[in-house]
Amino acid sequence: MRLSSSFLPTIKEIPSEAQIASHRLMLRAGLIRQTASGIYAWLPAGLRVLRNISEIVRQEQNAIGAQEILMPTLQSSDLWKKSGRYDAYGPEMLRIQDRHKHDLLYGPTNEEMITDLFGQIVKSYKELPQILYHIQWKFRDEIRPRFGVMRGREFLMKDAYSFDIDYDKAVITYYKMMLSYLRTFQRLGVKVIPMLADTGPIGGDLSHEFIILAPTGESGVFFDADFEEQDWLNMQIDSEDEKALANLFKQITQFYAATDEKHDKSRWDQIPQARRREGRGIEVGQIFYFGTKYTQSMDIAVIGSDGNKIYPHMGSYGIGVSRLVGAIIESSHDENGIIWPDSIAPFKACIINLGVKDEACVSICEKLHQIDPENFLYDDRDERAGSKFADADLMGHPWQIIVGPRSASKNKVEVKRRKTGERIELDVEEVANYISNYNDR
Amino acid sequence: MRLSSSFLPTIKEIPSEAQIASHRLMLRAGLIRQTASGIYAWLPAGLRVLRNISEIVRQEQNAIGAQEILMPTLQSSDLWKKSGRYDAYGPEMLRIQDRHKHDLLYGPTNEEMITDLFGQIVKSYKELPQILYHIQWKFRDEIRPRFGVMRGREFLMKDAYSFDIDYDKAVITYYKMMLSYLRTFQRLGVKVIPMLADTGPIGGDLSHEFIILAPTGESGVFFDADFEEQDWLNMQIDSEDEKALANLFKQITQFYAATDEKHDKSRWDQIPQARRREGRGIEVGQIFYFGTKYTQSMDIAVIGSDGNKIYPHMGSYGIGVSRLVGAIIESSHDENGIIWPDSIAPFKACIINLGVKDEACVSICEKLHQIDPENFLYDDRDERAGSKFADADLMGHPWQIIVGPRSASKNKVEVKRRKTGERIELDVEEVANYISNYNDR
Repeated sequence: MRLSSSFLPTIKEIPSEAQIASHRLMLRAGLIRQTASGIYAWLPAGLRVLRNISEIVRQEQNAIGAQEILMPTLQSSDLWKKSGRYDAYGPEMLRIQDRHKHDLLYGPTNEEMITDLFGQIVKSYKELPQILYHIQWKFRDEIRPRFGVMRGREFLMKDAYSFDIDYDKAVITYYKMMLSYLRTFQRLGVKVIPMLADTGPIGGDLSHEFIILAPTGESGVFFDADFEEQDWLNMQIDSEDEKALANLFKQITQFYAATDEKHDKSRWDQIPQARRREGRGIEVGQIFYFGTKYTQSMDIAVIGSDGNKIYPHMGSYGIGVSRLVGAIIESSHDENGIIWPDSIAPFKACIINLGVKDEACVSICEKLHQIDPENFLYDDRDERAGSKFADADLMGHPWQIIVGPRSASKNKVEVKRRKTGERIELDVEEVANYISNYNDR
Repeated sequence: MRLSSSFLPTIKEIPSEAQIASHRLMLRAGLIRQTASGIYAWLPAGLRVLRNISEIVRQEQNAIGAQEILMPTLQSSDLWKKSGRYDAYGPEMLRIQDRHKHDLLYGPTNEEMITDLFGQIVKSYKELPQILYHIQWKFRDEIRPRFGVMRGREFLMKDAYSFDIDYDKAVITYYKMMLSYLRTFQRLGVKVIPMLADTGPIGGDLSHEFIILAPTGESGVFFDADFEEQDWLNMQIDSEDEKALANLFKQITQFYAATDEKHDKSRWDQIPQARRREGRGIEVGQIFYFGTKYTQSMDIAVIGSDGNKIYPHMGSYGIGVSRLVGAIIESSHDENGIIWPDSIAPFKACIINLGVKDEACVSICEKLHQIDPENFLYDDRDERAGSKFADADLMGHPWQIIVGPRSASKNKVEVKRRKTGERIELDVEEVANYISNYNDR
């Protein structure tokens, strides 16, 4: 993609309406623009990040046998009246009347709808378990939307729902989802720690929050440093092996990790001083087991092996996809801009042409651009070098490939790693290999 | 994917609420379930089709230099008051008040929002042209939703918007989009014919509708049979070559094609009898050039080369993505079920195991399933053969791979093409090649 003809507007000035770094950087790097209070349009670079995150979430949901569906944004109020949440939900629920005066609402979550859908389709215990999810826009009418997409009103969420025959099986599904989340966040390139949580308005008695570490986070967090050493991707746990899942869960919960709300001073004091980590964090996901709360209130049952009605045990499992974009930036930026993890960066690299009128520069840039025209952004603008460097740092591309007249004449370019600032001079032909074989230390 | 553990519910009975074939088949094949009047949840098979269509649309939009963004579903009424459409739009627009009594609406289309966004970002004639699009859910509060997703209320649409410096350039962009649409529909595997159209409430003076041929279509259509012979994909037209684009447009418009509204009896009579085709069709896309209607009413201008204000000339370009699912089924089904075009089928093939207790059958099915576990659906259910065949025909997989005990013992399977009904017996090892090298006559 060529920057000169792209809809990738960067801003030099610091936007006065943004109070936190991620909001400022998302505006300045051209990821989003506000269209109404707490509602955003995603520009091409922002949409790419949103889609990269969604795709990793999707792959790791599918890997544990969850099936993707897509429920609509608008819901009839009938189901919510059945579950009792229509009145309970309060003013955060956006209530709507259609032209026939039917009460609709913009879904803030989907427990009711999925339970009803499940009940229409699944009739026998033999069809359990089921894990269904969707990645869909939700709306919560925050009284004071702020912090950009971190506390917006229209937001993208992955929400999964599970149905199991009994408590024991439901807990196994909960463990499965825990595994999926640990893998998901590691692939997203961020440090996320699950912490025991209150269940809140969803109800139930088992819940974990997933907290991304960021100095500007909303909650204080306390955790055992050994947690950060775990490599979930290389553990090769079979998600159908119930024993392995139970062991994994035991292993995770043995590490101390708590937000300030749940902090237990006496357990904390037992951790060796050197392993105690205090910091701040942002919630980017939460998982719940809540049993038969919805299946019972909505009278959705399956027929068991003995012919009797059984109310399936449910859990729900959220990841705030649009919120993650902000949260990841909070945890990964410097004074010059965003530092994207490789797996979700809108562009892998930016080719910076410092001699747009120099034949060698242009020809090298065109050649490099052809390596991956879709994922290598080509800064072909006729701008000062300083302004190009500043934009590349701001936009946070993992790699900058700097093509200047002096080195171009020797068929060489400079490659800079955004995260570390390290630079290396390479032959043009070496660039593709160097980047794809690079390993972070 | 294994059918036994999948959320792919088929229905034998004919749903009484559905009046047309596509609606009946979408319910029976387990693509959708209604959650409120004119609002649907997309089950796994339906979502796959929706995504396959979206991906082809996306690739062909990107191919002409359109850039993807994502605008929110909810819009502030302010912009619509500026353009004058807030009052004009009528009761199809779903109007919403948030907790602070601000007037929002669920976007039925995005001319206002994109014009405003464009105005915030693009300041100079040098940054033109711009073509921006998104694929997003829209809402129109139809007074009587019917025909399933064909006339639903919440629907998925690709809408693109273009900004050009003057009329001549805007027309070139219009031609580009025409090319993109012809390629898109051909790749979707359906016969779609562009027909001169009225511009309606969007305004402007150049518009084409894209009509898919289906006997149950809402409009009568008249067209020159030569149109159907065109192969847009093999034309290799460079979308940056203005002359080639203008020639293409000339070529397209030289063929007679009109809906009954626009039918011109005297031109029709000049077409040789043998080439006259009459039929019915469903509108699945429409493109408009409407000049400076929105840029002027919203006062969004760029600075021209002489320093003066210029109002960019705009066009908008829609494809009804969710509607297409229904329309394609209307044009491609038989009495047994859906006949999916290969490019958008939810699954490429279904492996039908007729001996779930036969060792050879099971081992061959597992082997075949491994060829492409994601796209080969494996019917491993313990069901009668007749019921499995009926489901496979109903769901419309392009290929059925039938594994029965007698042929399995000789390492053979039967492969059936859904579209033609032709069958061939093959060695297990030949199946993958046969399917991927098959060409429709």
